[in-house]
Amino acid sequence: MLGGAVGHSRDTLKFNGWGLEGRRFELGEHGDAFWAFLGASLGVDTSQVKPPLGLDDIPLPDVRLDGDQLTDLQEILAPDRVRTDRRERIFHALGRSYRDVLRLRSGELPDVPDAVVYPESAEEVLAILQWTSQQAVAVVPFGGGSSVVGGVEARRGEGHHALVTLDTTEMNALVSLDETSRTATLQAGMYGPEVEAALGARGYTLGHYPQSFEFSTLGGWVAAAGSGQFSSRYGAASSFLVSAELVSPTGVLQTLKTPHASTGPDLTQALLGSEGTLGVLTEATVRVRPVAEAREVRGYLFPDFERGASAVRALSQAGTAVCMMRLSDAEETDYYLHFKSLRKHGGERWMDRLVHWLMDQWAGEGEGVCVLLVGAEGSRDLVRDVFPQVSRHCLAHRGIPLGKGVGEAWFRSRFETPYLRASMMDRGVAVDTLETSATWSAIHALHRAVRVAIQDAIAASAVDKSEAIVMAHISHSYPEGASLYFTFIFPMVAGAEMTQWQSIKEAASRTISDHGATISHHHGVGLDHMPWMEAEKSPQGMAVMRSMKEALDPAGVLNPGKLLGP
Amino acid sequence: MLGGAVGHSRDTLKFNGWGLEGRRFELGEHGDAFWAFLGASLGVDTSQVKPPLGLDDIPLPDVRLDGDQLTDLQEILAPDRVRTDRRERIFHALGRSYRDVLRLRSGELPDVPDAVVYPESAEEVLAILQWTSQQAVAVVPFGGGSSVVGGVEARRGEGHHALVTLDTTEMNALVSLDETSRTATLQAGMYGPEVEAALGARGYTLGHYPQSFEFSTLGGWVAAAGSGQFSSRYGAASSFLVSAELVSPTGVLQTLKTPHASTGPDLTQALLGSEGTLGVLTEATVRVRPVAEAREVRGYLFPDFERGASAVRALSQAGTAVCMMRLSDAEETDYYLHFKSLRKHGGERWMDRLVHWLMDQWAGEGEGVCVLLVGAEGSRDLVRDVFPQVSRHCLAHRGIPLGKGVGEAWFRSRFETPYLRASMMDRGVAVDTLETSATWSAIHALHRAVRVAIQDAIAASAVDKSEAIVMAHISHSYPEGASLYFTFIFPMVAGAEMTQWQSIKEAASRTISDHGATISHHHGVGLDHMPWMEAEKSPQGMAVMRSMKEALDPAGVLNPGKLLGP
Repeated sequence: MLGGAVGHSRDTLKFNGWGLEGRRFELGEHGDAFWAFLGASLGVDTSQVKPPLGLDDIPLPDVRLDGDQLTDLQEILAPDRVRTDRRERIFHALGRSYRDVLRLRSGELPDVPDAVVYPESAEEVLAILQWTSQQAVAVVPFGGGSSVVGGVEARRGEGHHALVTLDTTEMNALVSLDETSRTATLQAGMYGPEVEAALGARGYTLGHYPQSFEFSTLGGWVAAAGSGQFSSRYGAASSFLVSAELVSPTGVLQTLKTPHASTGPDLTQALLGSEGTLGVLTEATVRVRPVAEAREVRGYLFPDFERGASAVRALSQAGTAVCMMRLSDAEETDYYLHFKSLRKHGGERWMDRLVHWLMDQWAGEGEGVCVLLVGAEGSRDLVRDVFPQVSRHCLAHRGIPLGKGVGEAWFRSRFETPYLRASMMDRGVAVDTLETSATWSAIHALHRAVRVAIQDAIAASAVDKSEAIVMAHISHSYPEGASLYFTFIFPMVAGAEMTQWQSIKEAASRTISDHGATISHHHGVGLDHMPWMEAEKSPQGMAVMRSMKEALDPAGVLNPGKLLGP
Repeated sequence: MLGGAVGHSRDTLKFNGWGLEGRRFELGEHGDAFWAFLGASLGVDTSQVKPPLGLDDIPLPDVRLDGDQLTDLQEILAPDRVRTDRRERIFHALGRSYRDVLRLRSGELPDVPDAVVYPESAEEVLAILQWTSQQAVAVVPFGGGSSVVGGVEARRGEGHHALVTLDTTEMNALVSLDETSRTATLQAGMYGPEVEAALGARGYTLGHYPQSFEFSTLGGWVAAAGSGQFSSRYGAASSFLVSAELVSPTGVLQTLKTPHASTGPDLTQALLGSEGTLGVLTEATVRVRPVAEAREVRGYLFPDFERGASAVRALSQAGTAVCMMRLSDAEETDYYLHFKSLRKHGGERWMDRLVHWLMDQWAGEGEGVCVLLVGAEGSRDLVRDVFPQVSRHCLAHRGIPLGKGVGEAWFRSRFETPYLRASMMDRGVAVDTLETSATWSAIHALHRAVRVAIQDAIAASAVDKSEAIVMAHISHSYPEGASLYFTFIFPMVAGAEMTQWQSIKEAASRTISDHGATISHHHGVGLDHMPWMEAEKSPQGMAVMRSMKEALDPAGVLNPGKLLGP
């Protein structure tokens, strides 16, 4: 049976956009005001609605596997776990980036899988990979399919006559829980809600909440070296992963379940971020914690981004036990204040008055006020004790406490915003994101340069006098630096959407690369970031990565073209 | 000039044992009592003293590099940085394990380097590695030479007519300090005291204190994936390393100085633990912290090892901000109580009385009382606030506070104990150590099994009714598990010391491997642990590691035979 209680049957998911079929971002009675605000901000008309192509109208190539090959696959698995129907093939054709959704909505797919297979065990995965290696058939490992960098795009690569997408979501069991060592071994195809439901039933949590949480899998988090919103407490995948089982065409690589070792390169870390190019992740042993007793997210307002970042840096370097620090820059703060006022959230009127009073007081001081959200999760004592420390650090950098309301509003809607993209694209408005990280001493110059690069590229692509909204936040911080996450909203150039996107992406990526920052903090590489990898990793580093692939996937069938290039 | 103010000129170091020439462990007036105690414990006569062979009595093979080759090396570097004299060649022939010291003392060296070269820059290292690749000359990278697993042993490997040891200790400068990001870039050949002196002059510390601190280098810590005594605060090398520069025969691999990335396998982590097989580490960027305001080490006494380990586990899983937790098992506690009473440390008589009263109270409860040392370092507030939390967790597991005396005694002598080995070997008594790590749910069965394996192997090797002292401690802990460090003292079998050692090492290693634990938590692999690597890493994992080497060292000249096997 496809899809468990908290998993997803493929039929319940949108084939051409984010999340559940039939669900959208609810603007309610404030819709008209929002579209008017967006239209005015961008200088375009947002009143025309153009829906995407329907599933049945998308051109679909023939299946390039012959009858014998399909029979082979059905014998390795079972007939109902080898799918060649239209919906399965199109659902698995691309990920969920702006670029992917553009292509899914227009029906211009670069390729689609010839079949989608659903193995239920490492043994079945191994049999599939051995068969595809013999048959020169490419394999794209696929978890939730939420990649925003082209990581699951159907691409055959050279020398392969067909392409199978290997969907891991039927491998979705909690294998074991070691309460003494606080580790859990889970099958890699579990969706976020499945992971938390299985652990939660025993009183534990992994605490990994990427924005894609509902529609991404444990295997995807590990394969793309992801980070969750509460990474300051629960760690990125690189921190919570204790060991992994990777099935490659040459066999099974199981890393040791041991807390630390000095036995050569850490292979667990080497599998992390392999993005399906080395094998299929089938199991992961992760650090878990007891479900937190308490959680609180509070807001602070700073006169400008520099002072806010200094507070985040101080908190991070002091090792303060927060679970999240999320600092919006002036543009993002401004956008959300508008958005919030449009939606007329109830209560907290004292806060609105305080924010506007502070904005007046600080007018002309910097580039504009910035909101910092700080989250804490854990024992009641921890949550109670940590905020006085947070407030002390914030006040030292002129941050004023705003209380819990703004934090609670963010928490409630944290998985909701991706749904808004479809409504925006219906009205000719694009929204895309990209992210990087840098040391504290480099972060402000990088922030300014990437903003300018995105703005200039959007302006150059515009056909008339339209504007763009370019905003950023810090959402993951470390003693030595932090991530920078950019969101940009701009009018789509009808008929040239793809070249427009490419010019913006290229300008931003070049700027990041030229600054010596990473091309991705937590989205991964896939196809979109591949051109910038050699500058980041050095030719020697790329040679090391390619050699690892040759050792585990000598036929080169695994996710061709991703991460390492053609 | 060889050796800076806090570095070491090679002439000031023992060529055949631990540390500084002329320095030994000072037993003072208590020497006779100690040797009598040790003799009685082991059932042997310790009164006969047999000194090791002198430097000039050790057989030395001819230099296998011809005049042209030596001229080449002198032109790449400078004549005084290409050394072929007896002392340099023998000093660099082996590391400092019990096995190495056995061979150095008897003069039975498996090989010696034909020359020792001292490059001063990455460019010079690259030139040396390119020359050795062309000439089929093996290269052993060498920092402090303190390896206890055969990591720096002079071994040519197949197909190489000669061997050069590349000593990194002339690359010993602080390159840059980024106070905003709290990172420092340092040349890799700096000894521990050099690292701390350079950072300390600016108000910072790396905080990495392995027992080898005085005689090991930053490059060695990274190359062997080491851990320091205060790893709970400052992290192992895998945590403090931000980026590294590795010079290979094919070029320079510089990893990005960025706090976190999701751009494929983390190459910084992949270089960690490479043990000189992939290249020579020339620079490392590390996390630093302001020098701590305060430090305190306190003792706690537990009725048995299980209860002590439960307290360490609870503290680790609660994330208590300690810098060290060091729990001795009953045998180690007993040994040190004897040792301490023999040396008649002054003061703290109330503590001695308390310990003995508790031992009487708890007699027959478990396998014997255990001492836990807990260290805290940081701000005065942190140190003041953390011990009430520590005491609460300890009391919950029946641990009784012993105050600061026992901790201070350990802190004062923490780098001193390795000096005792030479005096013991003079009297026919061997001391060796080995270590592993495991999850909390597996650690006690592993502890018992390894103890028995070592005891049985020593008993089997004994020529008469001698005994052994086999003891262990936990010194690095994690939410999911901890390290286990074994020390074993036994009478040497005259004339068969090496086979005796091999049988003990093999028995302990097999037991660790059979338990699914790691063959080394922080000593590394070198030659000694290599036979157990395939069981730990899987054949697929070994293939990945070998492929990385082929990519960076196609001629196979770098540290042949280490880590990956022949």
